[in-house]
Amino acid sequence: MEAKNNLKQLIQMFSVFDGKDLDKVVDCFKTRLIKKNEILLCEGDIAKEFYFINSGCIRTYFITKQGHEKTRYLMIEPSIGTALTSFISQKPSFEFIDALENTEVLAISYKDFYRLADEIQAWKNFYLKIMEMAYSFQNRKIESLVTLSATERYKQLIKENPKIVQRVSNKILASYLDIKQETLSRLKSK
Amino acid sequence: MEAKNNLKQLIQMFSVFDGKDLDKVVDCFKTRLIKKNEILLCEGDIAKEFYFINSGCIRTYFITKQGHEKTRYLMIEPSIGTALTSFISQKPSFEFIDALENTEVLAISYKDFYRLADEIQAWKNFYLKIMEMAYSFQNRKIESLVTLSATERYKQLIKENPKIVQRVSNKILASYLDIKQETLSRLKSK
Repeated sequence: MEAKNNLKQLIQMFSVFDGKDLDKVVDCFKTRLIKKNEILLCEGDIAKEFYFINSGCIRTYFITKQGHEKTRYLMIEPSIGTALTSFISQKPSFEFIDALENTEVLAISYKDFYRLADEIQAWKNFYLKIMEMAYSFQNRKIESLVTLSATERYKQLIKENPKIVQRVSNKILASYLDIKQETLSRLKSK
Repeated sequence: MEAKNNLKQLIQMFSVFDGKDLDKVVDCFKTRLIKKNEILLCEGDIAKEFYFINSGCIRTYFITKQGHEKTRYLMIEPSIGTALTSFISQKPSFEFIDALENTEVLAISYKDFYRLADEIQAWKNFYLKIMEMAYSFQNRKIESLVTLSATERYKQLIKENPKIVQRVSNKILASYLDIKQETLSRLKSK
């Protein structure tokens, strides 16, 4: 029950619900426990779930043509997300999703997610907010890659999301910041 | 009037409007003629307008810390767009917008855009579609940068949007595809 209350709190930060509508939404989310290193979605699969991370950490990543792993998005509790491009289009995903820690998520199916968006205006508003944030996050990430140095990107992350720096391995953090692991180790030791 | 009819056609491809609602939306768009090379938005300004391109071509671009111009998005008629991150957040833009040809746009203000989204469900649905498409476009662009070669990216563009290849200069096309101008000239001559 605590997980569902946490989810309600997060949703209410972005949209205002009437009466029982929020319960109707939250009832569609099902608890899942994911082991560290478990893969929730493979490249080529269709993302059929949207996640609320109640405890733990999951990420989306992809493999470049040179065979390098690039971490796109890190979700530490309390947080939401999925492989959004595949989820929206219901086409094969370009990204993987895996768990970096033992993680408890609440998952809602694609079908329920969009049915609720048709039925409940407040949920549609929440979805619109998510899309705005996802787009802006993506664009800010591109911005910081082209305008900030490795040091500046690392400092920005410490300022905006210190939990990530504390909990994610150097290898993954480096792939998220798009810097070399040696560079990251040097920055951390300073 | 023709421009407003073209705009209506485009909007109706993505959302279904009742009665006079679509007229109410389209009435908020004002005609603007933009000269080739005119800058509609500078880095640091706040994007206060959203555009329908009725004829011509505009683009968004940014300058990297090495001083290189990167073209993010090209809009050839009939098309829609703006510096979306700044438009959503009403914070200073990281991008410029300029015209690559003499261009006729219909522009709607930020204020009208969001007032209509509150008043007219079909316009909110249209906005949600735009956000989904913008996010997916952005992600597909990142994908193609990391998974496709220069040749493959060029071929993909010819297939999906041949007008861009015909109408945009090699310099700008190269910055859009993130390849060197020499490479692009070589690909084009093949």
